[in-house]
Amino acid sequence: MIRTQADIAAQTGKLLAQMRRARPLVHNIANYVSMDIAANALLAIGASPAMVHAREEVAEFVSFSGALVVNIGTLSTPWIESMKLAAEAAVAHHKPWVLDPVGAGATRLRNEAVAALLPHRPAIIRGNASEIMAVAGGVGVAPKGVDSANTTEEATALAVSLATHQRCVVIATGAIDVITDGKRVVKLANGSPMMTKVTALGCALSAVTGAFAAVTGDAFEASVAAVAVYGIVGELAAEHAAGPGSYRVAFLDRLASIEARHIEQHLKVAG
Amino acid sequence: MIRTQADIAAQTGKLLAQMRRARPLVHNIANYVSMDIAANALLAIGASPAMVHAREEVAEFVSFSGALVVNIGTLSTPWIESMKLAAEAAVAHHKPWVLDPVGAGATRLRNEAVAALLPHRPAIIRGNASEIMAVAGGVGVAPKGVDSANTTEEATALAVSLATHQRCVVIATGAIDVITDGKRVVKLANGSPMMTKVTALGCALSAVTGAFAAVTGDAFEASVAAVAVYGIVGELAAEHAAGPGSYRVAFLDRLASIEARHIEQHLKVAG
Amino acid sequence: MIRTQADIAAQTGKLLAQMRRARPLVHNIANYVSMDIAANALLAIGASPAMVHAREEVAEFVSFSGALVVNIGTLSTPWIESMKLAAEAAVAHHKPWVLDPVGAGATRLRNEAVAALLPHRPAIIRGNASEIMAVAGGVGVAPKGVDSANTTEEATALAVSLATHQRCVVIATGAIDVITDGKRVVKLANGSPMMTKVTALGCALSAVTGAFAAVTGDAFEASVAAVAVYGIVGELAAEHAAGPGSYRVAFLDRLASIEARHIEQHLKVAG
Repeated sequence: MIRTQADIAAQTGKLLAQMRRARPLVHNIANYVSMDIAANALLAIGASPAMVHAREEVAEFVSFSGALVVNIGTLSTPWIESMKLAAEAAVAHHKPWVLDPVGAGATRLRNEAVAALLPHRPAIIRGNASEIMAVAGGVGVAPKGVDSANTTEEATALAVSLATHQRCVVIATGAIDVITDGKRVVKLANGSPMMTKVTALGCALSAVTGAFAAVTGDAFEASVAAVAVYGIVGELAAEHAAGPGSYRVAFLDRLASIEARHIEQHLKVAG
Repeated sequence: MIRTQADIAAQTGKLLAQMRRARPLVHNIANYVSMDIAANALLAIGASPAMVHAREEVAEFVSFSGALVVNIGTLSTPWIESMKLAAEAAVAHHKPWVLDPVGAGATRLRNEAVAALLPHRPAIIRGNASEIMAVAGGVGVAPKGVDSANTTEEATALAVSLATHQRCVVIATGAIDVITDGKRVVKLANGSPMMTKVTALGCALSAVTGAFAAVTGDAFEASVAAVAVYGIVGELAAEHAAGPGSYRVAFLDRLASIEARHIEQHLKVAG
Repeated sequence: MIRTQADIAAQTGKLLAQMRRARPLVHNIANYVSMDIAANALLAIGASPAMVHAREEVAEFVSFSGALVVNIGTLSTPWIESMKLAAEAAVAHHKPWVLDPVGAGATRLRNEAVAALLPHRPAIIRGNASEIMAVAGGVGVAPKGVDSANTTEEATALAVSLATHQRCVVIATGAIDVITDGKRVVKLANGSPMMTKVTALGCALSAVTGAFAAVTGDAFEASVAAVAVYGIVGELAAEHAAGPGSYRVAFLDRLASIEARHIEQHLKVAG
């Protein structure tokens, strides 16, 4: 069960190629801030994005999509209703769905939304350390808007417990990215501090994770691959960026051009 | 009635200059994903954008706008209501309005929205091939989210029939762009495959078409000019782009700097 | 009471450093068009943005934020309700709040929204000349969508009167930026015409003003500092931009890299 860096790199490259060939339709119920960058990230990496939120059509739309991504960033009660309907339909149609619990722990409404969505069985939950800790029921998590006040090292135990309890994959992203299904834990050390200087790059990772989950039955492998690709892209994009504006541009360029050989060369499995 | 390439280029250059002088206010009921790029495209080309959707103010806002653009991308029932009110007001005030039927054919809600809007007489309908075929009542159109599963060659006959039936101009965009008012058909071959790698560039074209329609009573000439300018910009922007991130940047830069001489030099009339 | 250019530059540099150290959470009820650029501008300058609009959570969210920014760009009646609740909570929690009256004067709904929000005592009102004149009750203000039809020179007297009447700070931005608390008036002459070619850069300034207001009890100093920094960034960003696309990228890069020495070197106090 020991995974070497080379194993993960090879598997990631394989899934990336597979995803690009399939060009899965990823149905997003995204927050307003992230819609542009998430759609562009999905197009850049090779998937086909759609943002659809009306309660009258989400279930229908999920039925012919490859995966669903639900992001609670700019929450409101009508949207929570749509999120539940979409999640229910995803499960009914055996489509994996990803939950991005933006700002979980910050307000009662966010905690209630998460509590309402978890029973609909997301395949993957992706958040920053504070969000994952809040979803896992951690106490003493300082709310700090939508940015993390914790490290993923602090979040690891709660991430494992959340994955076990929910029988899903949990991704906690930060300087070190932690991916776990409760039994297995992979930690990746790629990325760049610049990633925190561009809004909604975390949300866009959740969307990209949906694209990988659409092409394999193994949500854990999909998650590891998505996080690996994304972190390496984040690292490469920092090479020539003069600031957060040009970094965002380089990030999208690199998402489109990343290949297996970059993954083999740059992947860093931590500890 | 035969239009030469030089004729179309000259007319396009003239309308572009006219539009830039007038700087028309374009009222958009846009989808969330496209708002940023559509507003920036309108500013770049030389128009004045506004995004306004509240049912309490759309009719009033249309009354002092140059054109209205209605995009059903991120649809919901309250917005359909506003779209109808705005379209009604546009017709009452003799303002041209453009319908962008994003994802038509994909869900019942989208088909119902289109059916509710068509009687309000859009001056122009702009979509990709699959969307135009769906609006025209084509059967066997495979829903694939918001990306086209068809070519504009396949869509041409249905585009002509839709234009005739609706007495409006229909634009089907793709590798070849088709513009028709039912009698005349112009096919343009500019553009770049990179245009499909940036989200909402089609939506932004609908907005830009509204800017041209605002300054001439001839919706067909406005449509040909908008598509011509946009395609050439798309081609020029690809010259130095390293990927979809830098392509989007170059696209906006080129929208602002395109002049009559670029149109004369680069316009490609197909077939 | 005479402020020299050097005084303003020094105070601005000091507040910029203070804000970056504090990294205040800025709660935005933003319009859809501006969310991406406003969040990215806040991250670039060194603050922590959040976009939160649900009536169920705005008051709670304001309570742990540093400042609130309310922008009426893409208005609707449910959002007006949230704006009022958030403003009320901001005052109750002694958090400064900034009102951006986008398109004031253009429609009845906008005027009603402004009238409903003013009694909740914004610390700062930031708009273009036409908007400030409309909020001040100016008559004969030609509605031209969301772009200004007036200069700030025309708006100055009304800006002073609005500030006096509302006991708040008023910022009217344009070729010359006017900042006044009714007694003091500072006019700054930095910036670039390119700033009007990128959508929502004014909205993003309102957000950035919130970040400065979060770290000082003096809303006038915060406003002068925010406008000074923003205008200088706008000027520096124009140096290498090839058009509005690359200008936006350079603008975000420069927001992140601006330092006290740039302010000392470039600040232009007008008249």
